[in-house]
Amino acid sequence: MSVTIAPIQESLLAYLSDKAYSKVVVIADTNTRKHCYSQIKTLLPKHHLIVVPAGEQHKNLSTCEQIWGEMTRLGLDRHAVVFNLGGGVIGDMGGFCAATYKRGIDFVQIPTTLLAQVDASVGGKLGIDFQGFKNHLGVFTQPKNVLIDASFLSTLPYIELRSGFAEIIKHCLIADAAKWEAIRKKDFEMQDWGDLIAHSVEIKKEVVAQDPTEKGLRKILNFGHTVGHAVETYYLSKPPKERLLHGEAIAAGMIIETYIAYRKKMVDLQTLEQVEEFIFSLYGKVNLKVLDIPHLIELAYQDKKNKGGELRFSLLTGIGSCGYDIKVTANEFHQGVAYYIG
Amino acid sequence: MSVTIAPIQESLLAYLSDKAYSKVVVIADTNTRKHCYSQIKTLLPKHHLIVVPAGEQHKNLSTCEQIWGEMTRLGLDRHAVVFNLGGGVIGDMGGFCAATYKRGIDFVQIPTTLLAQVDASVGGKLGIDFQGFKNHLGVFTQPKNVLIDASFLSTLPYIELRSGFAEIIKHCLIADAAKWEAIRKKDFEMQDWGDLIAHSVEIKKEVVAQDPTEKGLRKILNFGHTVGHAVETYYLSKPPKERLLHGEAIAAGMIIETYIAYRKKMVDLQTLEQVEEFIFSLYGKVNLKVLDIPHLIELAYQDKKNKGGELRFSLLTGIGSCGYDIKVTANEFHQGVAYYIG
Repeated sequence: MSVTIAPIQESLLAYLSDKAYSKVVVIADTNTRKHCYSQIKTLLPKHHLIVVPAGEQHKNLSTCEQIWGEMTRLGLDRHAVVFNLGGGVIGDMGGFCAATYKRGIDFVQIPTTLLAQVDASVGGKLGIDFQGFKNHLGVFTQPKNVLIDASFLSTLPYIELRSGFAEIIKHCLIADAAKWEAIRKKDFEMQDWGDLIAHSVEIKKEVVAQDPTEKGLRKILNFGHTVGHAVETYYLSKPPKERLLHGEAIAAGMIIETYIAYRKKMVDLQTLEQVEEFIFSLYGKVNLKVLDIPHLIELAYQDKKNKGGELRFSLLTGIGSCGYDIKVTANEFHQGVAYYIG
Repeated sequence: MSVTIAPIQESLLAYLSDKAYSKVVVIADTNTRKHCYSQIKTLLPKHHLIVVPAGEQHKNLSTCEQIWGEMTRLGLDRHAVVFNLGGGVIGDMGGFCAATYKRGIDFVQIPTTLLAQVDASVGGKLGIDFQGFKNHLGVFTQPKNVLIDASFLSTLPYIELRSGFAEIIKHCLIADAAKWEAIRKKDFEMQDWGDLIAHSVEIKKEVVAQDPTEKGLRKILNFGHTVGHAVETYYLSKPPKERLLHGEAIAAGMIIETYIAYRKKMVDLQTLEQVEEFIFSLYGKVNLKVLDIPHLIELAYQDKKNKGGELRFSLLTGIGSCGYDIKVTANEFHQGVAYYIG
């Protein structure tokens, strides 16, 4: 798994220097076409641009058909390469299309959001949503390289940056207590993104290398995500103005799952309070109602980590350590969300 | 790559004996539901049957959506297993659906046609057709096992058996001159299917083990297929009563490609005559017109083995040996088909 953290001018030219691709394609969405494409356009040889609509609601089979259709019309053979320029949606979906086109062609991730840089672009998980379920169809395939350049972050609004920060918080909570101390004592504006990106990528790479297809250890990366995905999916059905970003949902998920761990006596009260205080201060509270809980539980039962119809969570066993495959009952889930709602 | 050649009663029970799947699903088409499902139904624990329409014309995204949709409604988790009961279409498509559902669940191939037993079920190539191009979308994923039972062949009409025999012929021509001598001197009715299946599987396994994702050597398995696929795809656009089976198209492809090899001085006249005589005697001649040739060439340019817009063929270098990545011009292709038409 190759990840290169460097100015895109350097990393992209270095990547291409020893390759002889038959065709080059860039997949972007309407946002990254506008804000990021100009930064790589002149670095690339003759290429084709495929633009898809922006947003998670387009991460589906129908957009894949558009992408596969354009790849086919361009006559891409197996020796072509695809650069996915965008956030998690473009990386996951563009990667999935490349990994399945003619049974797989080379692709390179160029993540342009903090979220994609510290999480989605690393680890080879590709996929799309299906019938309302997140990442329900997909494959594990490693990109040829991930080119990370923090300068893309300057194009991001604050809430997008904050969304990505949730995964950094997660990486600290599951694997690095010292870093957790460091970030929680610093104002958001003072965080060193270059350092935090490198730190998160290092943790994620190490975990994924030990368990690429998530049979065991890799599941710890799902801390906050069983509940978080349910919350995120639930919000997809709401009006667009109530849109919830991935990191905002995961932030809520981390609080709820830490409460569940606390109730299971896996972490102490001080840990719960620390996690809660820091996350609430940054993200506030997602609007959930007690009446929503049964629907959230139903969504969680579709989670890929479950086994034989039972909910399985990855839960903190302390600051900086995490367990996985932990059975959680619908009742415990209910209590966790109820606690969050307060 | 596990392949078990044995009565299905034995192999299926042996396979399941040490597994603890959360759910069991069988994917069949309308034919195998009728003719083959009863042979495994009582061997399996409680399971669900997904039935799709029979035929290559249904090997597409729309049928996949049906399969993924049923998997989702059944609440399959990552610890479920799928048994694909059928010919190449069911194996390729059911395997593709399993390999992409929640980023991949276990699947087992139970090939019920000679063609699938000696070819499609072995090697991990999965996929579906897209916009008229064969196997245009797919992945390489090995099934957990391939359970081959020659007794399923008794349900097959003669033309289906003959279609599968084309791949056996191919395996002999590219890798085993002695076996070629043996089969060409025997009447079709006298062939020993059990022996030939084991022989073909052995050759294919050995080649695939050396090059699972077809970067090099594995391409020799495509002998007859560059032209053959073009012919097959071309026939898909014709009325259903002019339907052409895979092996019939490959039989034509092998003659045409052997002629191209002869024109390139890679094989001698005697080899060409031997191949031609045996295949024509069994399969007769596919109805192709000189006017069809440009369209066939266009289709061949979409072949996955091409590189940088050039046609690449796998061609015999003698009986029992085969080269790959051999450049073929549109003109040579034209001459080959014209020779075949006569």
